[in-house]
Amino acid sequence: MLFSCEAINQFTKRAFMHVGLSEADAAQAAEVITQAERSGVNSHGLQRLPMYLMRLMDGAVNFRPELKMQSSVPGCMAFNGDNGLGIVNAPRVLNKVMEAAKEYGIAAATLSNSNHYGAGNYYAWKLAEAGLIGMCMTNTSPCMAPTGGAECLLGSNPLTVAFPARDRDPVVLDMATSAVSLGKLQVMAGAGKSAPEGWVLDQEGRPSTDPAAPLKGGSMLPMAGYKGYGLALIIDLFSAVLSGACYGRDIGRLGVPGSTQPEGIGQFFLAIDPTKFVAENNYYWRIEDYIDMIKSSPKAPGVEQIFLPGEIEFNNARRICREGVEVPAATEARLLQCCRKYGMIGENGTLEELILGT
Amino acid sequence: MLFSCEAINQFTKRAFMHVGLSEADAAQAAEVITQAERSGVNSHGLQRLPMYLMRLMDGAVNFRPELKMQSSVPGCMAFNGDNGLGIVNAPRVLNKVMEAAKEYGIAAATLSNSNHYGAGNYYAWKLAEAGLIGMCMTNTSPCMAPTGGAECLLGSNPLTVAFPARDRDPVVLDMATSAVSLGKLQVMAGAGKSAPEGWVLDQEGRPSTDPAAPLKGGSMLPMAGYKGYGLALIIDLFSAVLSGACYGRDIGRLGVPGSTQPEGIGQFFLAIDPTKFVAENNYYWRIEDYIDMIKSSPKAPGVEQIFLPGEIEFNNARRICREGVEVPAATEARLLQCCRKYGMIGENGTLEELILGT
Repeated sequence: MLFSCEAINQFTKRAFMHVGLSEADAAQAAEVITQAERSGVNSHGLQRLPMYLMRLMDGAVNFRPELKMQSSVPGCMAFNGDNGLGIVNAPRVLNKVMEAAKEYGIAAATLSNSNHYGAGNYYAWKLAEAGLIGMCMTNTSPCMAPTGGAECLLGSNPLTVAFPARDRDPVVLDMATSAVSLGKLQVMAGAGKSAPEGWVLDQEGRPSTDPAAPLKGGSMLPMAGYKGYGLALIIDLFSAVLSGACYGRDIGRLGVPGSTQPEGIGQFFLAIDPTKFVAENNYYWRIEDYIDMIKSSPKAPGVEQIFLPGEIEFNNARRICREGVEVPAATEARLLQCCRKYGMIGENGTLEELILGT
Repeated sequence: MLFSCEAINQFTKRAFMHVGLSEADAAQAAEVITQAERSGVNSHGLQRLPMYLMRLMDGAVNFRPELKMQSSVPGCMAFNGDNGLGIVNAPRVLNKVMEAAKEYGIAAATLSNSNHYGAGNYYAWKLAEAGLIGMCMTNTSPCMAPTGGAECLLGSNPLTVAFPARDRDPVVLDMATSAVSLGKLQVMAGAGKSAPEGWVLDQEGRPSTDPAAPLKGGSMLPMAGYKGYGLALIIDLFSAVLSGACYGRDIGRLGVPGSTQPEGIGQFFLAIDPTKFVAENNYYWRIEDYIDMIKSSPKAPGVEQIFLPGEIEFNNARRICREGVEVPAATEARLLQCCRKYGMIGENGTLEELILGT
């Protein structure tokens, strides 16, 4: 069964209103989740909705947050998210940063006292649509040990970067700094496979090939060894040390039913107006020439095309807007279980009834 | 034979003046090279001096560049380096960015029509000394193919990030986005060793274990596969597309004797005053608490200590300031050959005479 993006959006909004969010906040949260589904990043779409709803219902996240600006000079803003959903507050902070960058050419903002902010590409697409270069960072629940260490102190801390284009898709880099995602390890563990070396460590910090090691007190490894450790750490400094958010052992874990401990993580946003550095037409000519250089360059044997960062998600969006969103069986089961529990649907209600609201 | 940092600095300045640089420009260039030696990054120290001198003598780099500001609004500056040495112009651009960040809280600058800018940690240490967070990027001569590609279009495009501290060493990430440095591959090739998989491709874009493959029309691979490709590409966009510098096939190759083609690369600098986001004492308390958290965390078996990014170079500097700089035999031979050729020293002159100027 395929659903339109609009149906996904309306359902998600209803779900957030059902657990008590205001209509405006629910609409904002739904937009972030729908964007993940629309661009094919379904690890950050409906799959995560039960987690957001649970955190609200458990009282771990504030239903009625008041986003506060704690300090500001033109171009530098520090916000406190009042423990609201990251997918509600972070888009609002992004809007402020984009306005400031349009006015001053460059602007940055931090957001503390925040929560999981969804897929980074939501923020990147907004920046690129506004004609802005941007960089977004968030820290996350710890899952990686520092290089040489045996304790999970660093999150998979993703980095998102956007460069706008006009007659091509923008360039959007959106990547975790871990060697592999926890989701991929879970799939391998479920299938009884071993993980390649360099992905995980056991509880004592020794190399392991057990994909479930991170769930047994072990840790995930950063991408590219000490370079990825360095990147993850720097993202912690921007997202948490500079913002005043939690890091390391102070971060509240996601996914612990009944826990009321706030996650307390932070985010960092940077926006730059390229036309303050180089003439507008010159910028767009150059970025598109660059994209064309990469796309038309010689391919390795067996390779059909070379992709720009983010290109696959823009291709996904064109296909998914036409064909609709497919909800995998595992996500369907999670959604039905959660929405039955919170009384959005009866015991025999189906995904179709739930999403279409019939 | 060990030399003091001051002796290295004076020699390097004399060498640049000998080939025609002004005293001020020679002093600036010498400072960047000395900082590399001082911090133990000798791949970017005296070892590179013959290359800089050759490019000046060959007429590929402008002796008397006039650094021009092409556009500016407060906090956003675009400079044209007039094909001067990167190690002369980039430090001056950095100073402008640091002044602007002190005034506005955040500032960025691009530098086009530039050349090799030395070791990134020079810029990071300056930023940290000024109490500023910073990010510096440069593109370089192409040596890596895009993921799926067979042509070298991307440089090893390093990323440098600095976070200041007060009672600890600053955190300084300074890393190329290639899996390994060309220097390391050359050492392996010289020793007749093979390279591990994932480091290089042959001329057709096929995986290879020949460490000399990049010198035979092949390419180096980015760190961490497509993630490193994405990072290297984004650094190209900041350094070259935004600045108006060359990228891909238009970059002039370094290390081609007699070539007068300018390198034409670009740089990007970002500086942020953390005290515009969070109270000064709070920032320093937090970054030092973060550093202590990492340093004191449990270690993996066999690991003596966990390092922060950049820590090894700060340790090197303390040791090298005390003990002096050691010049490896290969660098000595290169220096003597070059300085004899340009008449700085007679045919029988020694390294000691050359550096101490006796």
